[in-house]
Amino acid sequence: MMIDIPSFQHVKEAHKRIAGYTHVTPVFTSESINKITGADLYFKAENFQKVGAFKFRGACNAVFSLSEEDASKGVVTHSSGNHAAALALAARLRGVDANIVMPENAPEIKKKAVAGYGAKITFCNPTLEARESTTAKIVEEIGATIIHPYDNFYVISGQGTAAKELIETQIGFDVIMAPVGGGGLLSGTALSTKQLLPTCKVIAAEPKGADDAYRSFHSKTLIPSENPNTIADGLLTSLGKRNFSIIMDKVDDIVTVSEEAIVEAMRMIWERMKTIIEPSSAVPLAAILEGKAEIKNKKVGIILSGGNVDLGRLPF
Amino acid sequence: MMIDIPSFQHVKEAHKRIAGYTHVTPVFTSESINKITGADLYFKAENFQKVGAFKFRGACNAVFSLSEEDASKGVVTHSSGNHAAALALAARLRGVDANIVMPENAPEIKKKAVAGYGAKITFCNPTLEARESTTAKIVEEIGATIIHPYDNFYVISGQGTAAKELIETQIGFDVIMAPVGGGGLLSGTALSTKQLLPTCKVIAAEPKGADDAYRSFHSKTLIPSENPNTIADGLLTSLGKRNFSIIMDKVDDIVTVSEEAIVEAMRMIWERMKTIIEPSSAVPLAAILEGKAEIKNKKVGIILSGGNVDLGRLPF
Repeated sequence: MMIDIPSFQHVKEAHKRIAGYTHVTPVFTSESINKITGADLYFKAENFQKVGAFKFRGACNAVFSLSEEDASKGVVTHSSGNHAAALALAARLRGVDANIVMPENAPEIKKKAVAGYGAKITFCNPTLEARESTTAKIVEEIGATIIHPYDNFYVISGQGTAAKELIETQIGFDVIMAPVGGGGLLSGTALSTKQLLPTCKVIAAEPKGADDAYRSFHSKTLIPSENPNTIADGLLTSLGKRNFSIIMDKVDDIVTVSEEAIVEAMRMIWERMKTIIEPSSAVPLAAILEGKAEIKNKKVGIILSGGNVDLGRLPF
Repeated sequence: MMIDIPSFQHVKEAHKRIAGYTHVTPVFTSESINKITGADLYFKAENFQKVGAFKFRGACNAVFSLSEEDASKGVVTHSSGNHAAALALAARLRGVDANIVMPENAPEIKKKAVAGYGAKITFCNPTLEARESTTAKIVEEIGATIIHPYDNFYVISGQGTAAKELIETQIGFDVIMAPVGGGGLLSGTALSTKQLLPTCKVIAAEPKGADDAYRSFHSKTLIPSENPNTIADGLLTSLGKRNFSIIMDKVDDIVTVSEEAIVEAMRMIWERMKTIIEPSSAVPLAAILEGKAEIKNKKVGIILSGGNVDLGRLPF
């Protein structure tokens, strides 16, 4: 079976569909970070998006793309991260049920966040198998639609709206950078960038400790993540099929960064921009600090993916 | 001798004088904090101001108000906080010398910040007497102008520009709140508010552990701070004379808050607004959370004074 791959046209449709529900997030700059890096950096602050992450764009597009009949049966996903909260809020806004499958050992703070948005949480054993079988059972029982966190046509189209908004500021970018985990944000970013600014480079950054996208991209073969380990907890997942297809077609480079550089970049953004980002958001700036991306004297757009951190467990 | 007290006219002049050097800081809102407090809160984000605090407005106005001759001899202050960094940057922008008197035991991070803006630091013993005599010596030797951190005509006028900008958004406020330490921000805020929105209340909040402004206001007598102790390290200073005079004339109420409420409010702003504020900035929201200010269903402007915190020493 051919997989369904969105194009920029679908990003445009997504943007119309979700505009009434999402924030147009601000774009931040920092003179001191520009001085340190020797480039003009523009940070698209998706940590200011609803639920504190870009994930709300994709979840919202997926929920509002459902037919009335499908929507009435609800949606389901297995996740304990930003996608779960995003899907819960999107479902609430449409007035339908969100079913979230979570491992019993998920952090309390995540359980509370998802419950706070009114989702039904089903706990399962902390294995991929248990998550998938529990999700499948919910689909069978109530007919809910599975919304995958990133390997989903509508989720990818929705995530592309962040770069579209950034480019529509008319700043005129030479490079756009995003972190890569499952590839939802990166594939959407590439769709928007290569359509609106064909000569602009798209460069992704990934933690060395979770480098499946790096290895997949450079070997041109989809390689799953194995025992990933990084502070950037949003980037532990394996690249999706649809995401990989778009990335091979439209992304210029994927580079990896050390854990030390991630913490240094995160601290730099906290201290100098006074804005709270999660470690995953710091990965592109980490790549710049480690000299992994050609950005000297260039205009660089960077998507800050989110700002959900446990303040009791900071790396500083 | 009569003391010179600025009026709103001087705030307007200050605003023209400093507009080319200061940021028009953004105004943030949070649906979830509005829900918790039952009011419409608008946060003027002076943590996004240059040097990370409103203090740059006053310092900049003071430095650019000097005659050419006075300016050429430089400026001096004793401070180890945001005013020192603000004065250092303002002086650099005018191309004159800033002399900062600091106790030897000031935190390394503060010394570095001030040195980074190119100021000359003179260390002294950590007593008020040593600070004042060291400052006086510099005045005598080089003729530099003392710029007091808050009890200064031009500093007060400059600080008033934050509330002026906030009110000029045309949101239409019922209440404007600010923290109070020495009273520079509060007196400037009161000047702008009572001129532009005469029926709008001005309510200040102060830590219980440093309540000299509260006691001075309610007893109508200027009482100095004695052994103040609070996490809100920007609010340890005693109210100034000019500040007290304006505050008695134009402020509606001063309330006090607990340390617990300050930390709770700080955490709420970090987690829900994804923006980094220092403890002093959290004091007005702390007052709201403790039910100290009448704000139900009202439009409330709150000045977030700054965002300079040591990430290695957080209260979470």
